Amino acid sequence: MAETVERLRQRVEELERELSRERSRQVVGGRTRIEKMSSEVVDSNPYSRLMALKRMGIVGDYEKIRTYAVAIVGVGGVGSVTAEMLTRCGIGKLLLFDYDKVELANMNRLFFQPHQAGLSKVEAAEHTLRNINPDVAFEVHNYNITTVEHFEHFMSRISNGGLEDGKPVDLVLSCVDNFEARMAINTACNELGQTWMESGVSENAVSGHIQLMIPGESACFACAPPLVVAANIDEKTLKREGVCAASLPTTMGVVAGILVQNVLKFLLNFGTVSFYLGYNAMQDFFPTMSMKPNPQCDDRNCRKQQEEYKKKAAALPTQEAVPQEEEEIVHEDNEWGIELVSEVSEEELKNSSGPIPTLPEGITVAYTVPKKQEDSVSEVTVEDSGESLEDLMAKMKNM
Amino acid sequence: MAETVERLRQRVEELERELSRERSRQVVGGRTRIEKMSSEVVDSNPYSRLMALKRMGIVGDYEKIRTYAVAIVGVGGVGSVTAEMLTRCGIGKLLLFDYDKVELANMNRLFFQPHQAGLSKVEAAEHTLRNINPDVAFEVHNYNITTVEHFEHFMSRISNGGLEDGKPVDLVLSCVDNFEARMAINTACNELGQTWMESGVSENAVSGHIQLMIPGESACFACAPPLVVAANIDEKTLKREGVCAASLPTTMGVVAGILVQNVLKFLLNFGTVSFYLGYNAMQDFFPTMSMKPNPQCDDRNCRKQQEEYKKKAAALPTQEAVPQEEEEIVHEDNEWGIELVSEVSEEELKNSSGPIPTLPEGITVAYTVPKKQEDSVSEVTVEDSGESLEDLMAKMKNM
Repeated sequence: MAETVERLRQRVEELERELSRERSRQVVGGRTRIEKMSSEVVDSNPYSRLMALKRMGIVGDYEKIRTYAVAIVGVGGVGSVTAEMLTRCGIGKLLLFDYDKVELANMNRLFFQPHQAGLSKVEAAEHTLRNINPDVAFEVHNYNITTVEHFEHFMSRISNGGLEDGKPVDLVLSCVDNFEARMAINTACNELGQTWMESGVSENAVSGHIQLMIPGESACFACAPPLVVAANIDEKTLKREGVCAASLPTTMGVVAGILVQNVLKFLLNFGTVSFYLGYNAMQDFFPTMSMKPNPQCDDRNCRKQQEEYKKKAAALPTQEAVPQEEEEIVHEDNEWGIELVSEVSEEELKNSSGPIPTLPEGITVAYTVPKKQEDSVSEVTVEDSGESLEDLMAKMKNM
Repeated sequence: MAETVERLRQRVEELERELSRERSRQVVGGRTRIEKMSSEVVDSNPYSRLMALKRMGIVGDYEKIRTYAVAIVGVGGVGSVTAEMLTRCGIGKLLLFDYDKVELANMNRLFFQPHQAGLSKVEAAEHTLRNINPDVAFEVHNYNITTVEHFEHFMSRISNGGLEDGKPVDLVLSCVDNFEARMAINTACNELGQTWMESGVSENAVSGHIQLMIPGESACFACAPPLVVAANIDEKTLKREGVCAASLPTTMGVVAGILVQNVLKFLLNFGTVSFYLGYNAMQDFFPTMSMKPNPQCDDRNCRKQQEEYKKKAAALPTQEAVPQEEEEIVHEDNEWGIELVSEVSEEELKNSSGPIPTLPEGITVAYTVPKKQEDSVSEVTVEDSGESLEDLMAKMKNM
């Protein structure tokens, strides 16, 4: 009997040791926190290759990255890789917003692993990212930002969720897959004067883009039709009909890469920050462009931000002031000269109205505003179609 | 006493259950193997978004990906992400070659995690990749391909390591960080007539490129100086001096993304396969170009492949034949017109000799062949400098 007890006790100890070993492999397993980024070139320093950017003359003050907070809306094929890149770069804080669960159907994109199927994307992401870099602060929200209550909470976290609580975040990144969520982010950022970047991948998986929006300074998402973004159908809509959008880890990885590169250039002040960068994978074509805001934008906060930007620019001492004669981005609807590569047919484009920017070859719009009536004049101007974008939005919400 | 035994027995059972739960979370956790790729749109199908490429009209026969074997040399910042993308795309087989260990200093790039520090890169990668997609076959080699014995084994695995044993692999991808390994892959592929793709990221972390080499048809790595690749110093050399190359997960993610995109286009026959695609992250500039092989290439197997390609092309029925008058890639050393963006200064370029291809704006060479003597004529032709590339290689090996 005493022997049995002894044997059982040994077995308990053995199992406890093994269990703790397994758990440490999984949860701790990582590395200890690091107080101060060091340039020391040793195998144990996770920041040596980043701090080398200073010695290489690329970045003046790399450590500054620790002072920034970035919100990522959408933690799918682009958002999860975006979060991982920023985590590995040592960003100060990440705020993640998503309400989806990990599915095996997501395994054709980077980041999530099969054993995470069924977990919420934000929780699964936080767990992995904390292990990769415990120096980053995380705040995750498992909800849909487009519902009224969550939209208000989202707004308050953008305004107060900075590295120092009560301060705004430094940047919002849109990595969502549907029109409604993009419009919600646009509305929030226009109201708050919050700089953000948008990203998108087409539903045929072979094109994508990123876009920087500085309220008042560059075109917002409502100023002009979104460019190159795929058909305005989210995956849920498609699923109901038994079809789904295609996706590739390559295209999504490239889009996440150019997005985070733009974020690093913007926050750490090096290179040229792109206002718009497209990616056409079929031809390996990467168009860039920039768009001024639309003075007749439907979003009144966008118009307000434009006024404030003009005042601020005018108040600047010298040649920094904004040129008096602004280049107009809005064109009559018969002034095309746009080569189509994506979802909108030439026919549709000809039959549409509303603001269409002049686009470089290869860039197209993701949707157009249909003409109201047969009897509308062909010279429809923005003022005439002022309500159309909203109509369209309402229609899309009901799709 | 009986009570103690009972309590201990319960504790043992409890611990065994917990331990098995922990272990299943870690190791199994993944998904079961799938015999046949399906297009069915259900959350549990990891291939639905890839098979959708057929319905979208992008790829004719996506399932064909399962019939291909790809070898990846170098499983670092670019190679590991390359392997992960191909694994998630459902490639038939991956052969991984590397002799390095995972270090915390690698954590600023995607893929490896801190708990893997100390493991060999190929073993750590295989473990992660098998969990992500158990349908892929893996073969890993933890050795340096540039040593004589391993080079021979590497050659034999390229020739015999295909999906069906005894058949060659379909593609070799170079994701290495040094000149010697690139030359070894080039030598092997020229001898075997093996198509391969090269990739590289500059040591200042803000530029990179990919290049497709079809022996006999396009320029090999010895035909002309490698383009945009960084200074020819590998990380080990730099470490000794207490400095290291900079690297970014963004640049490496973009390079891996455009590399695997090119692989998919090449294997699955869609879009335009790029012979050369560069990435300048500072300006968001992506130059493309192609280069014909150098008839005076130092590698005799390259010259042999060129002859065979010409014969094969001439034997083709109609207009597929190679044009008689080939565009010469080699130019006199005073015919520059090249804008420099990278490691080689204009001064160095002016003082160098050897074959320099005509390059689009923004592309430069990673090194030049120095002029032999002060008394050499300024009109040095390729024939004159025939040995210089080899001299340079020898010099670099001793660096």
